[in-house]
Amino acid sequence: MSKHEDWMRLAYELAKSAAGQTSPNPMVGAVAVKEGRIIGSGAHLKAGTPHAEVYALNMAGAEAKGCTLYVTLEPCVHYGRTPPCTEKIISCGVKQVVIGSVDPDRNVSGKGISRMREAGIEVISGVLETECLKLNEAYFHHRRTGKPFVTLKTATTLDGKIATAGGDSRWITGEASRQYVHQLRHRYDAILVGVGTVLADNPRLTTRLETGGVNPLRVIVDSSLRIPIDANVVDTSEAPTWIFTTEARDFEKEKRLREKGVEVIPAGAGPRVGWEPLLRHLGEKGILSLLVEGGGEVNASLLSENRVQKVIAFIAPKLIGGKDSPTSVEGESPAKMAEARTLCDISIEQFGQDLCVTGYIVNE
Amino acid sequence: MSKHEDWMRLAYELAKSAAGQTSPNPMVGAVAVKEGRIIGSGAHLKAGTPHAEVYALNMAGAEAKGCTLYVTLEPCVHYGRTPPCTEKIISCGVKQVVIGSVDPDRNVSGKGISRMREAGIEVISGVLETECLKLNEAYFHHRRTGKPFVTLKTATTLDGKIATAGGDSRWITGEASRQYVHQLRHRYDAILVGVGTVLADNPRLTTRLETGGVNPLRVIVDSSLRIPIDANVVDTSEAPTWIFTTEARDFEKEKRLREKGVEVIPAGAGPRVGWEPLLRHLGEKGILSLLVEGGGEVNASLLSENRVQKVIAFIAPKLIGGKDSPTSVEGESPAKMAEARTLCDISIEQFGQDLCVTGYIVNE
Repeated sequence: MSKHEDWMRLAYELAKSAAGQTSPNPMVGAVAVKEGRIIGSGAHLKAGTPHAEVYALNMAGAEAKGCTLYVTLEPCVHYGRTPPCTEKIISCGVKQVVIGSVDPDRNVSGKGISRMREAGIEVISGVLETECLKLNEAYFHHRRTGKPFVTLKTATTLDGKIATAGGDSRWITGEASRQYVHQLRHRYDAILVGVGTVLADNPRLTTRLETGGVNPLRVIVDSSLRIPIDANVVDTSEAPTWIFTTEARDFEKEKRLREKGVEVIPAGAGPRVGWEPLLRHLGEKGILSLLVEGGGEVNASLLSENRVQKVIAFIAPKLIGGKDSPTSVEGESPAKMAEARTLCDISIEQFGQDLCVTGYIVNE
Repeated sequence: MSKHEDWMRLAYELAKSAAGQTSPNPMVGAVAVKEGRIIGSGAHLKAGTPHAEVYALNMAGAEAKGCTLYVTLEPCVHYGRTPPCTEKIISCGVKQVVIGSVDPDRNVSGKGISRMREAGIEVISGVLETECLKLNEAYFHHRRTGKPFVTLKTATTLDGKIATAGGDSRWITGEASRQYVHQLRHRYDAILVGVGTVLADNPRLTTRLETGGVNPLRVIVDSSLRIPIDANVVDTSEAPTWIFTTEARDFEKEKRLREKGVEVIPAGAGPRVGWEPLLRHLGEKGILSLLVEGGGEVNASLLSENRVQKVIAFIAPKLIGGKDSPTSVEGESPAKMAEARTLCDISIEQFGQDLCVTGYIVNE
């Protein structure tokens, strides 16, 4: 591995350490190096607080002059909630800037690099690029589309089932997988389930890590407002809940839900909640990433409309069987196997006895 | 790794190289070593031909005196088709014998070791034992139960489907996985499918490896003899076909099948073919290992009767969906998730983009 990659990997780890905290901002890490010694490091921790580069350069102090600055994302050039990082880098006398990923948004990308080059700084970009792009895949997707990055999380037996025919699903996966799901909840801005899942399992959909963690916004899809008023997710003391519904909703129920602090948002005339208005609304409200933990019908509907970017599939080494046991993707079968959705860029992890397959949907 | 393990691994690789050729005998490899140099090696290649130890000691010739002999399975002590290996080992003056696995059959195990120890040979056993036991798992199972070792092979999408609702299954898995299935067919003595699979896919169920390979016995489960007389598996020019059926069979069809060289074997009064008579018959005929490539109903039936020892599950990174798409295990769902069959001793391989999960059924 090159030196550049070594230092960038540290910047990347710093960036990643704030996963789940920075939204709607991207995760960014920075490391300042001079004559082979680290002289500063930083990470962006939270929207409204300083950027990673600022922490790193402040730590370096007077030593920053002539240093190399590693930063996972192209430094900003615009006045936002904080002054542009490019000006700080120039005024500190940084000699070389090594960038992980350039913002793929064409309206933004390259401007920071140009500004620094004009000021006489040597700029290298694309070091550890794949990892740095993946780190902010949700942020980039949101910038490009205005909608959240959608990840489907499933948990099945080897034969694809998510429960017995009678609905028992405790437990498909083991403790280690379920803990990891709480890490995912911490990292995602919002979590979505259909009302069927609420009726079947009455989940809380909160982040329950030993060490705390951030609760996601809870998004429920419920076309007619069948949700019980005493459902766990209707209790908004722990986390906010937004229910997307249709014109066919129960207006009396809506009133009672609103009294409980739940937001009720119409999304289409029905009979089903429209994914386009739902995703657009979430995107407008600054939700960059959405974790779908829905049942087979919600999953099938999202997939059939090409709304899914990523899949995280937990597979327990069990066989439950049952012609009538629900599977992770239901809906209508396509006619041909060739019409199946395919995943690419696959990675495999093990959590205890379970397998976890992660991949990205190949969209035609 | 110890020296003993290094040499045993070579013996193991030699044994494994003859996979699919030795049935009804076990796979065995042997290596003779003296003063750190290999002086002989061998593998059992085929029933009726010399055992691995004999090849290795013959290669060593006069040098065998005082050598260490590594052998993956306890040497035989009885007169079978060939004289007992223990006598050959003793007469050659072998000083030390290192054994991988002892035959778990209590009527056999230990006798070879005792005989050699009595003759003054130092015997060490259990080196690379797990691998050596697995190598002959089918042989040991057959010795213990009189029935073949049953392996369920499935190929599903991530959501557990084996085809579209309309029955299209070409292809779930990629080329690399399908090639590996042919290696499995080479290694197993017999392959089993239900007549439903014959009707849907008209498979040949032969071993089609670029390099040749051994065809398995083809076993079809067909309670009433619905199999078409022109089905590919009814052509016995490439490989034998045995159809297990019931008293409810079409006797006219039976006659025509027999004329084609197919064996028709009654197994129970019906309505379904009985697994016990089927497996017992196969075991009696020297079938040590059975690869089940059946549909969801055959798989469910075998699992529910606790007839399966091993599962090899290929999973393609695809989502097909469909409430009515068939899954790898159908039948009746149990009431509780806790009743699912669980796999242990899991290993994971990748074939191209596909995943392959192998494990052993935990039988209660």
